Amino acid sequence: MSDTNAVEVLAPGPLPAGLMDAFWAYDRALLGNDVPALDSSFARGADTLRADGSGVVVGHRAISEFRAARTAIPNRRVVRVHVRLPADGVALIVAEVVSPAGAPGLQTQLWQRGADGWRVGVAHVTAPARPLDGTVWRVLGAPLVPGRDAGPLRGLTFAVKDLFAVAGHAVGAGVAGYLAQARVRTEHAHAVGVLLEAGASIAGIAQTDEFAYSVHGRGGRQGTPDNPAAPGRLPGGSTSGPAVAVARGEVAFGLGTDTAGSIRVPGSYQGLWGIRTTTGAIGTEGLLPLAPSFDTVGWLAGDGGTLLAVAEALLPEDARTGHAEPAGHAELVTVPALNSQADREIAEAVAGTADALGATALEVAWDLDSWYAAFRTVQGWEAWRAHGAWIAANPGALSADVAARFDRAARITDEEHASARRELADASEAIRTAVQDRFLLLPATPTGPPPAAGIGPEALAVIRDRTLRLTCLASLAGLPALTVPAAKPAGMPTGMPLGRASGLPVGLGLVGPPGSDRALIRFALSATATAAGRSPHAQEEHP
Amino acid sequence: MSDTNAVEVLAPGPLPAGLMDAFWAYDRALLGNDVPALDSSFARGADTLRADGSGVVVGHRAISEFRAARTAIPNRRVVRVHVRLPADGVALIVAEVVSPAGAPGLQTQLWQRGADGWRVGVAHVTAPARPLDGTVWRVLGAPLVPGRDAGPLRGLTFAVKDLFAVAGHAVGAGVAGYLAQARVRTEHAHAVGVLLEAGASIAGIAQTDEFAYSVHGRGGRQGTPDNPAAPGRLPGGSTSGPAVAVARGEVAFGLGTDTAGSIRVPGSYQGLWGIRTTTGAIGTEGLLPLAPSFDTVGWLAGDGGTLLAVAEALLPEDARTGHAEPAGHAELVTVPALNSQADREIAEAVAGTADALGATALEVAWDLDSWYAAFRTVQGWEAWRAHGAWIAANPGALSADVAARFDRAARITDEEHASARRELADASEAIRTAVQDRFLLLPATPTGPPPAAGIGPEALAVIRDRTLRLTCLASLAGLPALTVPAAKPAGMPTGMPLGRASGLPVGLGLVGPPGSDRALIRFALSATATAAGRSPHAQEEHP
Repeated sequence: MSDTNAVEVLAPGPLPAGLMDAFWAYDRALLGNDVPALDSSFARGADTLRADGSGVVVGHRAISEFRAARTAIPNRRVVRVHVRLPADGVALIVAEVVSPAGAPGLQTQLWQRGADGWRVGVAHVTAPARPLDGTVWRVLGAPLVPGRDAGPLRGLTFAVKDLFAVAGHAVGAGVAGYLAQARVRTEHAHAVGVLLEAGASIAGIAQTDEFAYSVHGRGGRQGTPDNPAAPGRLPGGSTSGPAVAVARGEVAFGLGTDTAGSIRVPGSYQGLWGIRTTTGAIGTEGLLPLAPSFDTVGWLAGDGGTLLAVAEALLPEDARTGHAEPAGHAELVTVPALNSQADREIAEAVAGTADALGATALEVAWDLDSWYAAFRTVQGWEAWRAHGAWIAANPGALSADVAARFDRAARITDEEHASARRELADASEAIRTAVQDRFLLLPATPTGPPPAAGIGPEALAVIRDRTLRLTCLASLAGLPALTVPAAKPAGMPTGMPLGRASGLPVGLGLVGPPGSDRALIRFALSATATAAGRSPHAQEEHP
Repeated sequence: MSDTNAVEVLAPGPLPAGLMDAFWAYDRALLGNDVPALDSSFARGADTLRADGSGVVVGHRAISEFRAARTAIPNRRVVRVHVRLPADGVALIVAEVVSPAGAPGLQTQLWQRGADGWRVGVAHVTAPARPLDGTVWRVLGAPLVPGRDAGPLRGLTFAVKDLFAVAGHAVGAGVAGYLAQARVRTEHAHAVGVLLEAGASIAGIAQTDEFAYSVHGRGGRQGTPDNPAAPGRLPGGSTSGPAVAVARGEVAFGLGTDTAGSIRVPGSYQGLWGIRTTTGAIGTEGLLPLAPSFDTVGWLAGDGGTLLAVAEALLPEDARTGHAEPAGHAELVTVPALNSQADREIAEAVAGTADALGATALEVAWDLDSWYAAFRTVQGWEAWRAHGAWIAANPGALSADVAARFDRAARITDEEHASARRELADASEAIRTAVQDRFLLLPATPTGPPPAAGIGPEALAVIRDRTLRLTCLASLAGLPALTVPAAKPAGMPTGMPLGRASGLPVGLGLVGPPGSDRALIRFALSATATAAGRSPHAQEEHP
């Protein structure tokens, strides 16, 4: 193609002065990710709207924040422009764009002429299609592995975190160099086999943070997935791929793991339901370890009913999790000292829910800093034993932050490890004694999802530490832990992005005694049905 | 979710009378695929525009035809509506929708109030995302199989038609029941292995018509892919999945097969470059047969350069295809008796190109009907030998039309087969004698892509017969055959949908003597460079 710069402009009549200049200035700003120029292309005010397939952002300031936070800079060029002029000073432009690979996309903008020239009031973007979003998926099938043509989960598809063995595939663990050397597995991991036998089908193998040793979901070489519930924000990890696949409505549930929060963090950041199961309740055969003392199987879903259906299939029946246990009868406690770890709005959401559900406040004297340090020591010591040899033999294979974490883990001495493990035994005892057979309500995470860009490693490390200090409690005590979306307005369907217009997602956490996994989910289902309010917005019945 | 009917309507001020009624009437019509109601929702006139990620349709009539032809009825519901009112009688509506699976989508409409109420002037749809388009892909990876980290095709990804063995995967041949019983292959098919060694990576395994025994691309149980170059039209087959993946810009090239036109038909229908290679030039080890006497390896790409690069990797060097042969020096002939088989516009496009390139008209006395009947007989006889046993043992596994074709094939006697094969030998001799060492220009297909819906099986059978009568000529003579897009306006990039606004794609065919595969591509590259015209539309330089 010799004339790649030629762009057709198709309009029913003469174009108003300045319109195309404004359009091209906007396009240049987009390609250069020139946030100030983009800000000035958009109309000031609360009604300005920017939308794409993963969400709607409303208001000039929110759009500006979205642009500043996102990592992906659009890489496409305009090839044809359709202009419509419905009124004086109003233009609608539909621009056909194409990615470097040749994939087509669309951009529609409502332009309005004000005192300071043409400005965008509404923008709708259809990004050029990727055949596979490699930040979310490593392999996808239609399905990849069909489930048994019977069973309680028949018809449901799920994403498998790239830590579980899937027969016919290697385990990649989010590390390209590891995948390249990994053997093709001949048997499914235990949890995978049980789910297939229950009738669920594997849609594909989804991405994880490198060796699952992160809670932000930034990913390795494959890049960072978008957070469908909070455009421009991190998705949370390490079960990042399965969570995003659920939040996008691509699968019914996502199978993952939770060592220190790897289910609960993406669940909280993306407005999903997620469970970390009681340590040891589900076999970890065929699961790549991170820290075996804390590694548990978990899963995420867009609604509590699906979460429960998977629990019924995966969790062994025992007296403590018996089907007969009535929902909603467990006593609820809350620990103000934990709630105060969270950002104000989250602490308020937890306190409000605690009030609404009549939770008893529990005063405790837990040394969170010391416990977290001990947890980090034992986790790091085990993680290095799981992966240190490979990492040492393959320098440069990991991202800087995960590599640094393993590097610190490599230097933990056996004495430090033994001492930390003793402290964790005491901590576990303290937590179990406090919780008894009750359910503990707490923030699932102390913050909302951090921005995907424009935030430094130190600031991210602070958020990580604040997060793990809370989430490690269930892990070190071996307890089941749930995250449940708190701020989902009524009428918002499963998987629907919350978007900036409705605020960032907030996850409520629930921790129960060992084996109470299913009862926890039933309790949350019952509690959310009770607490469901109405959105403050005007409602219109779908005719 | 108890209140699934609640829809938020967010507007900066009071809504004008009748707007939301018109919006909901349109939405009901969409969900019911009520074409007359949709027609009346859209503004009459040539400027009305409807666009989605796969193309733009301009004009009320073209939009109506698009709606009537497409098979896919949108299945989603509106959950939130944003209204903007830039001028009196003008409204922009951005509707957030969600698929039954919970995947979010967007619809933006420009509404204008006329004498007869509110009508849509522009509509932009972002369909809820599917993680994998199962009509195009069976398995996808990031990549599925990496190519060697060196070689001439390094960095290119390709789609593999689901007839070639890919180690670690079974061959499905577009038939779900066949796939379920198929063994996982341990070695790559010859052509797949050569391409990986040349540095190209497998993006995934793409769909085919059932056992490749169709040229329409309607697919089996997996459904019919959209034609990215002609919304609402069939994509052509049997190499349907790889072709659509190329046309969408998802891969650099698609590896397929051509027995009777299975590369050339989708190439022509989708505005792609495609080659059927000289019979026997590329080994078919690891390729599921349809009719081994005619089965050839072929591929499709968005541009001639990529087509040639793959040819350099896959085709053995020999004297007749030597690198040294200069492009554009071959003598070109055309056969008016073949051109007249095509629809008028296509015949005119071929005649125009023949004139422009100084082709010599060739008078021949070829009995196309008899040759086609003989070809069909031999093809059917071989196809039954390849797949009859499995088909007989698995009744109901195939779509009605392909099943009927195999059923007829099953009844071909050995005598009919022997007689037909003798006739084909004479036909091959006649064609080779006429073509000599020259290149034959002909229509790649006699028609454009048929509508995907609203066309009966008899009408499709007529198009199929007309198509194969032309495309079987290269097949029965074992000659290489190219399809090259004829109607691509200047400035339109690779993979860009042509859309209705610019007319349906038209493929020019080129057939050469045995072994002239690469020379054919070079000739076409040189000829299209010579013939490239300018679009009649206004051009604007991208600043």
